[in-house]
Amino acid sequence: MPATMHLNLFVHGRGHHEAAWRHSRASTAPLTDIAYYVDLALIAESGKFDSVFFADHLAVGSEIAHAARGGLEPLTTLAALAVATEHIGLIATASTSYTEPYNLARQFASVDHISGGRAGWNIVTSWLQSAAANYGDQQLLGHDERYARAFEYLDVVTKLWDSWADDARIDDAAYGIYADPARVRAVAHAGEHYRVAGPLNIPRPPQGYPLLVQAGSSPEGRRFAATHAEAVFTAHLEKATAVEFARDLRARAVEAGRSPESIRVLPGLSPAIGGTEHEAQRLWQELNELTVPEVGLAHLSARFGGVDLSHLDLDERLSADDLPDPRTVQAAQSRAELILRLVRRERPTLRSLLHTLAGARGHHITAGTPEQIADVIADWFHVGAADGFNIMPPVLPSGLTDFVAEVVPLLQQKGLFRTDYSASTLRGLYGLPRPANRLFDEPDAAGSEPLFSGSGSA
Amino acid sequence: MPATMHLNLFVHGRGHHEAAWRHSRASTAPLTDIAYYVDLALIAESGKFDSVFFADHLAVGSEIAHAARGGLEPLTTLAALAVATEHIGLIATASTSYTEPYNLARQFASVDHISGGRAGWNIVTSWLQSAAANYGDQQLLGHDERYARAFEYLDVVTKLWDSWADDARIDDAAYGIYADPARVRAVAHAGEHYRVAGPLNIPRPPQGYPLLVQAGSSPEGRRFAATHAEAVFTAHLEKATAVEFARDLRARAVEAGRSPESIRVLPGLSPAIGGTEHEAQRLWQELNELTVPEVGLAHLSARFGGVDLSHLDLDERLSADDLPDPRTVQAAQSRAELILRLVRRERPTLRSLLHTLAGARGHHITAGTPEQIADVIADWFHVGAADGFNIMPPVLPSGLTDFVAEVVPLLQQKGLFRTDYSASTLRGLYGLPRPANRLFDEPDAAGSEPLFSGSGSA
Repeated sequence: MPATMHLNLFVHGRGHHEAAWRHSRASTAPLTDIAYYVDLALIAESGKFDSVFFADHLAVGSEIAHAARGGLEPLTTLAALAVATEHIGLIATASTSYTEPYNLARQFASVDHISGGRAGWNIVTSWLQSAAANYGDQQLLGHDERYARAFEYLDVVTKLWDSWADDARIDDAAYGIYADPARVRAVAHAGEHYRVAGPLNIPRPPQGYPLLVQAGSSPEGRRFAATHAEAVFTAHLEKATAVEFARDLRARAVEAGRSPESIRVLPGLSPAIGGTEHEAQRLWQELNELTVPEVGLAHLSARFGGVDLSHLDLDERLSADDLPDPRTVQAAQSRAELILRLVRRERPTLRSLLHTLAGARGHHITAGTPEQIADVIADWFHVGAADGFNIMPPVLPSGLTDFVAEVVPLLQQKGLFRTDYSASTLRGLYGLPRPANRLFDEPDAAGSEPLFSGSGSA
Repeated sequence: MPATMHLNLFVHGRGHHEAAWRHSRASTAPLTDIAYYVDLALIAESGKFDSVFFADHLAVGSEIAHAARGGLEPLTTLAALAVATEHIGLIATASTSYTEPYNLARQFASVDHISGGRAGWNIVTSWLQSAAANYGDQQLLGHDERYARAFEYLDVVTKLWDSWADDARIDDAAYGIYADPARVRAVAHAGEHYRVAGPLNIPRPPQGYPLLVQAGSSPEGRRFAATHAEAVFTAHLEKATAVEFARDLRARAVEAGRSPESIRVLPGLSPAIGGTEHEAQRLWQELNELTVPEVGLAHLSARFGGVDLSHLDLDERLSADDLPDPRTVQAAQSRAELILRLVRRERPTLRSLLHTLAGARGHHITAGTPEQIADVIADWFHVGAADGFNIMPPVLPSGLTDFVAEVVPLLQQKGLFRTDYSASTLRGLYGLPRPANRLFDEPDAAGSEPLFSGSGSA
């Protein structure tokens, strides 16, 4: 049997196209309506998807005049979906820059318990200047400084998850022994950025750790992914860069002492599906006609660190000089580079560039019949561009409903995708192991830390 | 029709008695099993309770050897319960000392949206030394310093909830107007302890603000409650202090410019219910026989700032000199005073004091037939000790099941409690108004803040 692929549903407003909220095939539910998200998760679950994913943005700006923004908070959304679904994995973004590690560790542990081992954490360092201003910072931390903290942060939260051995809870009512205090341990972390005593106040998650997901593509982001990530979301306008990225990431994983098979690479794919290729193309056209340039401009500006683009003419060809050097930008460097490469190669008008980015913000967009979409997917998978796909329907829920009804069966017929769930945890679905406990399972772990620090009582 | 009372279920492990987890009528489910909490919420909902409440402790100590500790995180639990219940309010503790205000504001807003307006926040400043050590602090902040921060914190989070006017979302697909940018506003908070730009990234909660609950009883805690709280949980071993507390709190509310009816006072009540009074008393006896002194000692020590009590004999009478002066304790001062008053008056042995506190940690405990329990409740309500009760079953779920089946109908027959839900929000159930929007509804609010600060884009 050949290896099969993985499918993740990336939920974004009423669809990934920035004008999706205006389209006639989009949901009309408020973005704060949990029933809408439950519905999406259940459709994806009926299509045997591995997981559903909620990104996050820690600020909202004036682009909401014309853009659907301001939905539910991801972790509380996951907890609600955990009781409304049975099989599908539940992944949310959370920031290492703006959440106390103790809070993040326990909330993800809690969601992993509530869902019976279906939680995943998309680790981001946050790149919006406007987010920094919501957390007391005058200035966004520099790119490398954010990653330096993220490395230490991961060390802290994984130790917190490990602070209860899997067998710590004894729960022997007759003898009055609730837990073995030798199997619950302080982490006593005192590093450059964080001081955390531990132990965590919740037992080790069913999966050991929630699935660790990452999406950074800069050199520092890739180094982080190669060290820690088990699944990687990545944005590529074209197959060639996706192949190159996957190859580079696996090489870096090997350098970091890991197996190249220990990371699942999932490029984004935003498919417009139609009865004919022409009908599918028409969806993109309809959506582009619904865009409002201010939204795209605000987004593009933020990608380049807030640069002013208001003097540019929408219908004149761009040159690379119109945008700042990505290396000088303290934001999402790799995405800025991707955009600049496109500008250099194609010299699009600003309007045309905004349309391209409106589709899926730099991820691969495509249009075709279900057969054509399935062929693209099979091709990327076979040439090593992908272990699976981050499915980004341009319009929701219709684009998902169509994908599940028409594309998934073709992938199943090709033997490329599961026909039923055969694992009960998210790690199981992705074919990834449950991590060993660093504080208890490893040979030199025993006795390395004091049992408890501080005078604890609850 | 006479005013009716309010009932809140306080969930605590497998019951409020510290040895409940060992009792034959307690649940045997792990404390991380969401099905257990869903079950409790549904039983309370079948009894028409106003709300269910989850406290929180940001640390776990060596007492877990003999005490059931380490359950789910409260906010993720509320989100899960929101989709598993229909009517009952959902209240959780969260700390102003250890959560970023932007994170807390949006997670509670999210739960309020997910539940359709049923969220409540029990505001605490956290008093455990061991919690401070999990958040980078070498030392717990002083009592008054914690409250000074809490006042500013409340100002920030209420402004964040108010940063979207109720009519901000227009969602006009035809014209491409998603939100009115003049109705979404920066909060531009720059205070002594917090700097938060805003706006929040989620629309105003259905309730305006989640219900604001508080449980501080020290002078500074009462001042905070009188200023901000809409419902107050309070611990009294006896009716007289409860009456005095309610009277004092209402007077302070009036001083703060509020109506005395604007606060619901809910003392804790831990009832053992039996076919006869003797049978009911036997439950307390059985539970006390299951206690392990180490657990009670750790708890008592923490209440007095971590003082060493190990030299005391369990079976000798205590005097006030055996415990430190509560005014010197940077923890939960009012509870320490309550305990000291009991010691002065009754000179109990340490073992007997531990038994009293094991029942419900300083809350009122009682035992009797359903009729006797209902009479106690009616009496406290009629003399002004309570607007309602924080019901703390000694053993769960059996103590709740009995209360709903046998005590609630008696309260309903007396006309003291609702027979069905007649409001759809938690504020509605407590008979409390939806707060005005400070940034948009008040006469001098318009134009007082810049629309947006920073370059926002999501």
